[in-house]
Amino acid sequence: MADLDRTPVAGNGLLDRRFFLKAGAAGGATLLTASAAGLEREAWMKMPGGPMSEDGAPSAHEAHVKRINIRSQPGTTGTGVSFTPHEFLDGVITPSRLHFERHHSGIPDIDPDEHRLAIYGMVDRPLSFSLDALARYPMVSRIQFLECSGNSGSSIRPEPVQASCGSLHGLVSASEWGGVPLSVLLEEAGVKRGAKWIIADGADSAVMSRSVPLDKIMDDAIVALYQNGERLRPGNGYPMRLFLPGWEGNASVKWLRTIKVMDRPAMAKDETSKYSDLNDEGIATLFTFPMGVKSVITSPSHGMTMGPTGTYQLSGIAWTGAGKIKRVEVSADGGRSWADAALDEHVLSKCLTRFRAAWDWNGGPAVIMSRATDEAGNVQPTRGQVLKGRAAGHFYHYNGIQAWAVGGNGEVTNVYA
Amino acid sequence: MADLDRTPVAGNGLLDRRFFLKAGAAGGATLLTASAAGLEREAWMKMPGGPMSEDGAPSAHEAHVKRINIRSQPGTTGTGVSFTPHEFLDGVITPSRLHFERHHSGIPDIDPDEHRLAIYGMVDRPLSFSLDALARYPMVSRIQFLECSGNSGSSIRPEPVQASCGSLHGLVSASEWGGVPLSVLLEEAGVKRGAKWIIADGADSAVMSRSVPLDKIMDDAIVALYQNGERLRPGNGYPMRLFLPGWEGNASVKWLRTIKVMDRPAMAKDETSKYSDLNDEGIATLFTFPMGVKSVITSPSHGMTMGPTGTYQLSGIAWTGAGKIKRVEVSADGGRSWADAALDEHVLSKCLTRFRAAWDWNGGPAVIMSRATDEAGNVQPTRGQVLKGRAAGHFYHYNGIQAWAVGGNGEVTNVYA
Repeated sequence: MADLDRTPVAGNGLLDRRFFLKAGAAGGATLLTASAAGLEREAWMKMPGGPMSEDGAPSAHEAHVKRINIRSQPGTTGTGVSFTPHEFLDGVITPSRLHFERHHSGIPDIDPDEHRLAIYGMVDRPLSFSLDALARYPMVSRIQFLECSGNSGSSIRPEPVQASCGSLHGLVSASEWGGVPLSVLLEEAGVKRGAKWIIADGADSAVMSRSVPLDKIMDDAIVALYQNGERLRPGNGYPMRLFLPGWEGNASVKWLRTIKVMDRPAMAKDETSKYSDLNDEGIATLFTFPMGVKSVITSPSHGMTMGPTGTYQLSGIAWTGAGKIKRVEVSADGGRSWADAALDEHVLSKCLTRFRAAWDWNGGPAVIMSRATDEAGNVQPTRGQVLKGRAAGHFYHYNGIQAWAVGGNGEVTNVYA
Repeated sequence: MADLDRTPVAGNGLLDRRFFLKAGAAGGATLLTASAAGLEREAWMKMPGGPMSEDGAPSAHEAHVKRINIRSQPGTTGTGVSFTPHEFLDGVITPSRLHFERHHSGIPDIDPDEHRLAIYGMVDRPLSFSLDALARYPMVSRIQFLECSGNSGSSIRPEPVQASCGSLHGLVSASEWGGVPLSVLLEEAGVKRGAKWIIADGADSAVMSRSVPLDKIMDDAIVALYQNGERLRPGNGYPMRLFLPGWEGNASVKWLRTIKVMDRPAMAKDETSKYSDLNDEGIATLFTFPMGVKSVITSPSHGMTMGPTGTYQLSGIAWTGAGKIKRVEVSADGGRSWADAALDEHVLSKCLTRFRAAWDWNGGPAVIMSRATDEAGNVQPTRGQVLKGRAAGHFYHYNGIQAWAVGGNGEVTNVYA
């Protein structure tokens, strides 16, 4: 069956990644006993199937695949979060219906014909753009991740939270984002000498506001109009949002309404009292924009139960605000030894990258983990390294290594290792 | 505003593609008259917005964006087609709810726990795979197009059909497809000497069947389980389908149930009486698998009306079964002169590629068209070249250049040019 050596390349059964796609991985196939040609037809083959439809829905058998861990501030219905259920997904695209949400005052019901984007402040010509106007401008589209700076924040707690992969790490999603480069619009408005920042305001009733350096805006920021081919979903900023590739999610202001060009940051509440990082000496760091290098194994993960012993696929996602993922290593012995995972064909900049490894599970206890390295040389830190020097309770920008324990009974749980 | 020269590089106002993202394209911005800081807040900013949700839907304002041109055989509800409305989309990913459908006997309602994939015929060990078994095998995911061989077939008619871009060319879509390489499963089964083909059968009541050369199967065929991150939608083969990158759609058999390894093709009805190409001497070509190099401008396109004169974005999609798109040219004078379009950042193999160009529309009549070239050197043919030597009425594998006329009144229609 396989010419390649099945000898593990790292502890507790991790196989060489070259093994991965080269040979039968001995999953759970069973020998076919009856003649296939004479197989009895199942019930659904004996009657005509269902019709075409205008709007295709997932299978009823997949009804459990939905956004999870939905939490709103007490007394509100729309001030909170919902998470992407990564434990049920594969590949890198997040279906738009499952993209995570973080709203500061719910989803405004915006009339796209009435909505305008205003650019003003330190510009020669303050401008106003309708959706129809923006449609005439050059656009770009790119497949990129968006991550809330609070993602994985529960990992700072003293004891590991027993919850699914998506409940813990589901404030990251990836989509194809399409829209007009903000540089094009600012060049038309004419940026004045001395301008260094912009502040973007949303059209939600919280008027979510973030300051962004002009360099980033002129580099790769877009006014996003499309997500995964169609118009943005309401929870992701319909009819338009700012999109800042690789940067913390809340700076990609949804329902984008105004861009004011300035010579300094505005020091808005969501960049001072929130989304800043406090150290254990009481010093806060503001404007931690690029998200760190990070990865998580999505399968197997908390809540799953292993089947019979034998070869399994380990699969997960890795990403970095610094560009492309260069390498993902996996361990099956709690980090004592590591083996390189295989990366799926498309390794795109500032996007999720799917990694996979083949693992011979011998039925005994194991601790599996993944560690990503990006093209800038950043290596995903351990939990201990992330927490070192942090003030207690400060959970933003957590990118530590995630460990899952596989018990002798096959149950997978969240552990610190 | 722009340092680059606005002198057209091709007839009737096509601008240099370097112009495209470098400078204000003078779309339809209006000068902001009121103080932006003092803008009156819209109604939706004066109340808390809507809540998070388990399953996010598109905006109610986008209810018109749905699959179109749904047609079923007389007397059936599920034997026919539905089309992707490309005129409303941007980027390259097709939302799964809008992926085109072509069913030969409707969508079977398959119980995923009961469904099995059998591999038999010229193999050492006939095997049977449940979904759980397949989940343990190595997987890959790639973003690729799928096109029905009948796509654009109405372009053979003597007069151009006046219908939207999606109604004419919407039997092509692109998704991230994830699953197990069929080569891995066949290696486990042990392919016998002399095997050259397989035949794949679907679990629909029509038992859609296609023969596929073993070389293709071992190269890049997968048993697809995931589409755009989640499980396949029922209309696209839930719980599993064959996926053959770049090849005519119906060979990527949906609801995949059996793979029989053979020494020759089975000559099934859908590769002999259908999906074959008849020439005007009465000779049929069988097994035209790779889809030809092709492109279409999606905006502006039939049914749209231009606004005021000035700069517009021309945008469209290009693809080829031979690999990557290398170049897309656009014309605004009916093909007399051509200018290179800009390609979006991700040019992926056997995937849709989004192209764009800036066009100064002077308000007069124009005929716009696009012409794609792939990395193998194939150039998209004219309609005349495609039809030359074809038997009347044979519409499969049509990849001719699409022309849209822009009238002096701004209305866009389908023309042959």
